[in-house]
Amino acid sequence: MKATVLYGPRDVRYEDVPEPEIVQPTDAIIRLSATCICGSDLWPYRGLNDINAPLHMGHEYCGVVVEVGSAVTSVKPGQFVVGSFCLSDNTCPHCRFGFQSACQQGGFMTGAQAPYARVPLADGTLVATADLPDAAMIPHLLATSDVLGTGWYAADAAQVHAGSTVVVVGDGAVGLMGVLAASQMGAERIIIMSRHADRQRLARAFGATDIVAERGTEGIARIMELTGGVGAESVLECVGMGESMDQAMGVCRPGGTIGYVGVPHGVSFDGQKLFRAQRRMLGGPAPVRRFLPDLMDRVLKGAIRPGKVFDLVLPIAQVAEGYRAMDERRAIKTLLRVDA
Amino acid sequence: MKATVLYGPRDVRYEDVPEPEIVQPTDAIIRLSATCICGSDLWPYRGLNDINAPLHMGHEYCGVVVEVGSAVTSVKPGQFVVGSFCLSDNTCPHCRFGFQSACQQGGFMTGAQAPYARVPLADGTLVATADLPDAAMIPHLLATSDVLGTGWYAADAAQVHAGSTVVVVGDGAVGLMGVLAASQMGAERIIIMSRHADRQRLARAFGATDIVAERGTEGIARIMELTGGVGAESVLECVGMGESMDQAMGVCRPGGTIGYVGVPHGVSFDGQKLFRAQRRMLGGPAPVRRFLPDLMDRVLKGAIRPGKVFDLVLPIAQVAEGYRAMDERRAIKTLLRVDA
Repeated sequence: MKATVLYGPRDVRYEDVPEPEIVQPTDAIIRLSATCICGSDLWPYRGLNDINAPLHMGHEYCGVVVEVGSAVTSVKPGQFVVGSFCLSDNTCPHCRFGFQSACQQGGFMTGAQAPYARVPLADGTLVATADLPDAAMIPHLLATSDVLGTGWYAADAAQVHAGSTVVVVGDGAVGLMGVLAASQMGAERIIIMSRHADRQRLARAFGATDIVAERGTEGIARIMELTGGVGAESVLECVGMGESMDQAMGVCRPGGTIGYVGVPHGVSFDGQKLFRAQRRMLGGPAPVRRFLPDLMDRVLKGAIRPGKVFDLVLPIAQVAEGYRAMDERRAIKTLLRVDA
Repeated sequence: MKATVLYGPRDVRYEDVPEPEIVQPTDAIIRLSATCICGSDLWPYRGLNDINAPLHMGHEYCGVVVEVGSAVTSVKPGQFVVGSFCLSDNTCPHCRFGFQSACQQGGFMTGAQAPYARVPLADGTLVATADLPDAAMIPHLLATSDVLGTGWYAADAAQVHAGSTVVVVGDGAVGLMGVLAASQMGAERIIIMSRHADRQRLARAFGATDIVAERGTEGIARIMELTGGVGAESVLECVGMGESMDQAMGVCRPGGTIGYVGVPHGVSFDGQKLFRAQRRMLGGPAPVRRFLPDLMDRVLKGAIRPGKVFDLVLPIAQVAEGYRAMDERRAIKTLLRVDA
């Protein structure tokens, strides 16, 4: 089969690779219904992470189980499944504590930008639906695997609750999903920092109540004005740069919480400054598995339509164009059709 | 009157100063029943904070109101009061959010190592008792003003709850009060890192279930062993040094919370490392006013005896010896008698 392999900066190829096989008895092989490109795929694509060997790209996935290892008991061939980008056994102490992202056996999914993929720790990573979903449901279910799960975690980590005032820093796909999550959690006011008209429209559709186009100290001043000089009790940092973290710090009220899900690049905190700021903070890769059954249920009931975040759909053979479009910010997020 | 003034490193004097007077209509003047020396007083005493002018020392206090400004309504002359070391109006949005330590009008108490002191924002800072307390109660009530309030906040910030596994880093007075707080909050297991026999005994008396004498990687390994390889869900960092913060990070489980109340000196965090660690963090000066009525109530009912943390009692005229004893670690915490 062909699959997506990154060789170096901006050198992504759709090329022949061996078909995945069961390696461990806890593995499953799935036929992808769709996959997509993550904002975090752009870090190595842009050469900002070192690459030592060709990378088999893709960690957002859903599809139909075609084979399972001998130890797999919770999913079976023919079932439609969604899995978290964080692999987990879902039984270790960290998983039971709700941090499947720190599973003692865990790791990260790879190789999902392909027609078939091997999912390790299938029992603890995959969630099956009762029936095969309609094709129209696929983008929404695919989104739960990472981008929605990560936006949801940003809101959860930021302790969003009914009546909250929330600021979302970052109008990428994760930030937009953070808006949707905050809205579902009953936030009263959801302010997103965004300068792009198309993303602003999507943010409104997902539940944003206010848009702030200013950045830096002006952006902070505008949000302080909008919040009566107080700041927001929950801030979702969905970028991972020093500037975006400064924005998050600047608009969070003392005693408020910053949930940060953008992988930090070049970000550091001075201990005494953080102490004086009195901001609660929690970040990390999202323990999507904790939320996955609930998120899939919301999708299947039609309560949320997170797949609207995909504004570019390509056949997977054109994956390189999908990366280019996101790199050049022509697309928010690219869905890759595997049936093509 | 005489009062405590710090002129430079290890140069603290008990010398003539003007008696305090009402300056703002929101002020109160109190006659101290007792005062004490804080671990944080040792930072400038040791020359680790710059001093530009002589400092009027002392921010832990309780006593009897002798005079109030024209705007003060909640306390009156003759009443016994305890106040937070953080001054607060207790009405601004940050105060109402429980972060009186970030009061829009607030600041920090000074000049309380003296027979009389001026307390700004008296209505929002002081809490009066119904009756004048017995002399035996004074050390316990005094402790609520900062050292217990700060230990309590460390536990609150670290989200200690019934059944928690807690690690306390630091066996100073605040760490010991953190143990007491965690115990009162129903923690099941309270592990304190301590190498000093006298402090270990006190920690046991306050509710510690385990003592770990090792430090550094050995200390972390020992605690990981005690917690089945998992780590603690709540960690109280009560020192403020790089080494102690590393200990706190090392023993906290993913998804667990570090409450840090030691003012950080030379501490910084790498964003990506913190992200991967998945530790929740909240620190800062303690919003003692939030807890003060409850803590005073626990003291007056005899439920807690935090004053046991004072292992040296001196007449205030010997304040310089009180500083020396704490600086040389001959004393955990010095209470200064003002009646002498």
